[in-house]
Order: sequence, then C-alpha cells, then structure tokens
Amino acid sequence: MRAGPSQEEIRRHNLGALLRHVHLGGPTSRAELTSRMGLNRSTIMALTSDLTAAGLVREELPRETGRAGRPSLVVRPESSRVYVFAFDLGPDRLVVARVGLGGVILDRREAVRRRGAFDLDEVVGALAGFARQMHRKTRADTVCVGAAAAVAGGVRKSDGVVRYGPNLLAVDVPFGEALSKKLALGLPVSVGNDANLGALAEHTRGVGAAVRDLIYLHGDVGVGGGVIAGGHLLGGHEGFGGEVGHMVVHPGGRLCGCGSHGCLEAEVGERALLEAAGRAPDGPAEGPLGRDAVRAVVDAADRGDIVAQDALSRVGDWLGLGVANLVNIFNPEMVIFGGMLREIYLGAAAQVRSRLAVDALPAHRERLRLRTSALADDATLVGAAELAFAHVLADPLEALARAGG
Amino acid sequence: MRAGPSQEEIRRHNLGALLRHVHLGGPTSRAELTSRMGLNRSTIMALTSDLTAAGLVREELPRETGRAGRPSLVVRPESSRVYVFAFDLGPDRLVVARVGLGGVILDRREAVRRRGAFDLDEVVGALAGFARQMHRKTRADTVCVGAAAAVAGGVRKSDGVVRYGPNLLAVDVPFGEALSKKLALGLPVSVGNDANLGALAEHTRGVGAAVRDLIYLHGDVGVGGGVIAGGHLLGGHEGFGGEVGHMVVHPGGRLCGCGSHGCLEAEVGERALLEAAGRAPDGPAEGPLGRDAVRAVVDAADRGDIVAQDALSRVGDWLGLGVANLVNIFNPEMVIFGGMLREIYLGAAAQVRSRLAVDALPAHRERLRLRTSALADDATLVGAAELAFAHVLADPLEALARAGG
Repeated sequence: MRAGPSQEEIRRHNLGALLRHVHLGGPTSRAELTSRMGLNRSTIMALTSDLTAAGLVREELPRETGRAGRPSLVVRPESSRVYVFAFDLGPDRLVVARVGLGGVILDRREAVRRRGAFDLDEVVGALAGFARQMHRKTRADTVCVGAAAAVAGGVRKSDGVVRYGPNLLAVDVPFGEALSKKLALGLPVSVGNDANLGALAEHTRGVGAAVRDLIYLHGDVGVGGGVIAGGHLLGGHEGFGGEVGHMVVHPGGRLCGCGSHGCLEAEVGERALLEAAGRAPDGPAEGPLGRDAVRAVVDAADRGDIVAQDALSRVGDWLGLGVANLVNIFNPEMVIFGGMLREIYLGAAAQVRSRLAVDALPAHRERLRLRTSALADDATLVGAAELAFAHVLADPLEALARAGG
Repeated sequence: MRAGPSQEEIRRHNLGALLRHVHLGGPTSRAELTSRMGLNRSTIMALTSDLTAAGLVREELPRETGRAGRPSLVVRPESSRVYVFAFDLGPDRLVVARVGLGGVILDRREAVRRRGAFDLDEVVGALAGFARQMHRKTRADTVCVGAAAAVAGGVRKSDGVVRYGPNLLAVDVPFGEALSKKLALGLPVSVGNDANLGALAEHTRGVGAAVRDLIYLHGDVGVGGGVIAGGHLLGGHEGFGGEVGHMVVHPGGRLCGCGSHGCLEAEVGERALLEAAGRAPDGPAEGPLGRDAVRAVVDAADRGDIVAQDALSRVGDWLGLGVANLVNIFNPEMVIFGGMLREIYLGAAAQVRSRLAVDALPAHRERLRLRTSALADDATLVGAAELAFAHVLADPLEALARAGG
C-alpha cells in the first residue's frame, strides 16, 4: 500500500532492468533494448552511458549486419571485470566458482566432501581457501560485487543460519556469517537452500526461462524442492519454503532423516533406491554411495537387471505420487527434475506419468510439462551466482560503489 | 524486466493506494494517510480531491478530537454509493450480497441449494434473480462497479470456466459468462475458487490481515485451500493453484470424488466424518448431510459420545498430516481453518497438533500459528467482493468511468 516511486527510484529501477537484460540475455543492441524495455532512445542512451561509466557494461560496434544504415551499438556485460563468488555445499561435494556478470563461469574449484559429522571450520576453511586462491589470480581492475552459497538444508533468510540439514548432519549452523568472516573480502555471503537456488537458476537461465510457475525437484542424497510461483521464488515466512522432500507421501513408511516416516525424501532418496536394489552399503551386494551409485542402478535397469528395474519402478511410483500432489497443490506449468532425480526420472518416467494420470487432477496435468534440468550438476551453483548478483541488478551503481568498483 | 512507470501510472497507482487504505482501513484522516503513504500533504490533498470529485470518497470534519489546532479532515469511502455484487456458489447454498466500498454488506439474499446434477440455468437464474431484486431497490445515484463469484471448484482464470467441481457435480461450466449474461448489467463477472477467495478475505479483512504467508483451509462438503505466499495469492499456471484437498495423504485410502484415493478431502471431508461417526445417510443411524450434521458430530463428541470422539480423532489425525505437509512445503506463518473445518479443528485440535509435532519440521512449526477463520461463513463471500473491487483499487477513475459512475 505504499506510494509510487520517485524519479530517482525509477532511474535505479531502469538501470537495474537494463543490466538484467544483458546479464541474462547477453549482448543486446541499443535498438533492441529500446523496443524491449518500452523506453525511448535517449533514455536508453543515458542509462547505458551511466552503466558504461561505472564499468558494468561496454558498448561496441556489432559485427557486419549486412543491413544498410548506421548500425545500433551493442551493449555487453563486463563479464571479466565484474564478478561474484558462488559456493555450493552439498552432502558429497564442495564447489566454488568465480562467476562474471552475464553468468560466465570464469574459474572454479571442486572438492569431494566426506559424509559424517558437520565440521563448520573445515567446510568454511575449504570453501574460503578456494575462493581466495581464485581471488589472488584476478587482475587489479576486477571487482567482486557479491557472494552467495547454496546449501543442502533449510536456511533462515534473516541471517543465513542453516537451521537443519539432515543430509549434512548440520543443525543451527551460522554458515553465512562464518564463511563471510573466513573469506575476509569485506563481503556478506547470502545463503539459500540448494533446491530453491536450483529453481531460480532454471527459471533464469535454464529450461524454465519463460515459465512463471514451475517446480524444481533436486535429488542429492535427499530430495529438495524450489517453487517459482507467479514468477517469484516461494520463500515462506522464514525462508524454508519449497521443502517438498518432507511431504509425507507414505504414512508409516520408511524412516526419514528428519525423524518422520514416509517423507518423499525417505521413499525416493538415494538410500531408498540403493536398498531396494540391494546395493546399500549394508545390503547384500555392498556398493558405494553417491551419484555414481544411483547412476549404476539406472544403468543396470536399462541393461535388463530385474532387481534394479523393480527398485527404480518402486521409487518412480512414489516420485510420481509426490509430483501429483505438487501438481494439484501448485498447478505449475512445468516440473523439472534435477540432480540425481534427472537419472531417476529418465529411468522411471513411465511410473511417474502413470501416477500422475491417476492422482493429478486432469485440469492440472493437461498442460503440464515434465523436463530434466538444463543446467545439470551446475543448477545449484548457478542459482547461488544469481543470488549473489541480485542486489547488483536491484541497484547497480550503489552496489558497485559499495564494492569499491 | 519492463521499464519504470510513467507519471500518469504513478498517479493512478497512488489513487488506488489511497482508496485501498480507506477501503480496508475505514475512515482515515488526511494526516494519517500522509504519514502512512509517505507522500507529502499537497499530493494527498490532490488525490483525495480527485477521488471525492469522482464520488468514491468523501471528506468530513472528524468528531471532537480534544486536541488543539485545526483537525485533519477524515477521508471515508462512499460505501452506500459505490458497490459490487458478490456471489457465493457452494454445494449447499447460494448467496448474493451487495457490498459497498469499504466492505460493508448493504444487502444480501441466501437460498438453500439441493445437491444433485448441476443445472447451470437454474443456478445462474437464482443468483441473477436475487441480484436484480437488490439492484432495483438501489437509489438512482448509486453505481455498481463490479461483480465476482466464489465457486466450490477449480476455476480457469482466463475465462472463469469452472473446469471441475466434484462437490457441485460441475464439469467445464462457463459460469462467469452465463452469470454475466443473465445479470444483464453490462458487467463481466470475475470467478474464483471459493477457498482461494476465502484466503484473500482472511488476508485482507480477517485473522491474517498482517500476515504475508498463510494457508486458508476451507471445509464445505470437500476441502479446498487458498495460499497467500509473500503477500500474493497463489494462482498457478491456469488459476487452479491451492487445490490442497486433492493432495494424497493416504495412498490406497478412501475413494475421492476426483477419482483418486486417499486425498485430504476424502479423509477429512464431510462424508469421511459422518461415515466414521455412523451418521452417513446410508449408515446405521441415518442422519442429514451438511454443516449441521458436521456440527452435530462435534457436539456429540463434546458431550462424551465415544463413537463421535473416535470419528473426530481419526479425521483430525489426517487433517493434521495434511497440515504438516503444507507447513513443510510452504513454511507459512499461519494456517486458518474455515468453513466446517473450523468446527472440526476446534474439536480435534489435539490430534492436529500432535501430528504436526511428528511430521512438521521443527523450524517450520516453531513460529506457526493455527487459527480459525475470523469471517466465519462469510469468508468466501467477502473474498468474492474483494475480487470484484480489485480493478477499482487498481485504477479507480478508469473503473468508475467504465461503470458509468
């Protein structure tokens, strides 16, 4: 119910909107920006000149267009100059990337993470160490404008505390604060749930780019979710929204890491699949854990292994029920399977679809599209980069000034 | 990614924001509007004078304030002059109300609806008949600015078609179009799902007025839901969002009107409760259907009837599981029980809370508030009125001009 914006707010909004265009859409001619943003040419020229002066974009003559007349200058993001740090903390791996404006991954480091008790110092030390290595290699004229992390857990939005993370064995960990301190670049580190950020990534740069209502399901040991509703990420009251992995689909079913029984995560997570396939570490045919173990079951099913096929079919059935519930609740245009759920969905699409046919309301499923993640294993990392850029796109000049650029 | 608003758009926005203040907050002094809207006094004066000239508000001297100095004029909505028609189509009743700006119910009619095959002509005839009776009684200087209906079914937002309504036995009914034609006031009739509009009503005028993330659960034969996420109603891709009654909570459970088994609606709806209590029409102790029958079970349980207590406890347990799932998925600040779920929740709060303690993640339930509807049986009707007023609050002068006011 607040009043309309001031002229200065409008200018900031327009600067952010223009920068978002080239950040997400890549190099764009002034003429195209004029038509897409519905502003006149002189306004676009003033905006690009402000952004150019700040070193956020540069303007170039386009390559030969073949058309007569004076060509329109192309505006491109200063990807190698302006960047963020994106972190990804999953159950099995740590990833850090230096991501330039425009979404270009300029540099990255990755390490295997051993499962077991959560050691904040160790995790933060490894992540910050990688980032500082990369930071030292940058040229003097570059500027780091932000940092953000994707974490496999429930993150309180007010302070970046990881309230819970059953698959990290993390409880009430002040992760954002600790990482920011260790990073020692004078930057706060925003923190988000990995699946929420995966949803954001697929919505901005992936298979759901033009889709305003989508659900991203992320499998990585457990099952997480991120929901884009009406073009906005569903955050919930404290930032825990989209935690669909702990929807109970099978009352009295398998014990879940959260303490309940029959959660979607308990019925379709890594352990459920490996146990059903007799491949859990304590099962008859001892095997490894992780993404490779899941892939091995899907591959075995593909080659005709009946035990693997049955396991995949059982997991696919529960996955289908979970998806049907979400389709009824959210009426999304698209459901995207990411992380290890990509493999599981590809191996069990028939079960998923047949559950949908039974349990999803016809009006909700008729126009529904089921897709696999376009960004694959980088979805959560790309989402973290977008979170880190968010304040730059909201107010470019102010953000750059604060970063000392 | 569009550009910022023009001066004219800002003026319209401000006119709408001011009108929304007095529509929802009641008579408000100019001084208070100035401080709440963050605009200067001359702008507020210009806006109120435009709205006064259009006959949407009037300004009055306040009653004796007891304070020295010139009192600030009070701006109040022209409730008796500017009104909408609100319709409510439930399984058991038809309601029509004439609702004045400011949310005042000026006049209303209600009729019992017999269950059975859906007869569009009959329903539309009755609703439009009531509205026209009321319309004829209005003074010549009044102006009807909109009309909207709440319907117990899934409503496609693009055209107001009721795609499904298991408890109305309605399928693909062009309800909005038919009612608008029969009404013959030259007005389109917006249509929304009853529980969605109940959520909107509780969010604007009820127990969830200051709450940005809430879930409203509406019981009326079946179970519907409406979700306010980040201050906005969850619509979904085609408008069917919030259909939580068809979340499967009990795979292989009771047959649902939608064709699936074990939906929340099938396990906690009217028939589930009455059957468990042995009071369904085809049960041992034949009883009536409807809200009164549900109340009778809750009353009997309250008086110590063990069969009724068991029935309520069973239904409360499934309701609690459904709520736990929604709390995990949405991380709401508040869950509101409306319609017949008010009685059921009041009679089975212990079961609901104990399910939540087991199945909802601690971080999600710690700050959760469970409440009953403040608007009681009028929640869906009040929501329809708000839907009808929406375009007036978006652009007051244009809406009034179109209505011929």
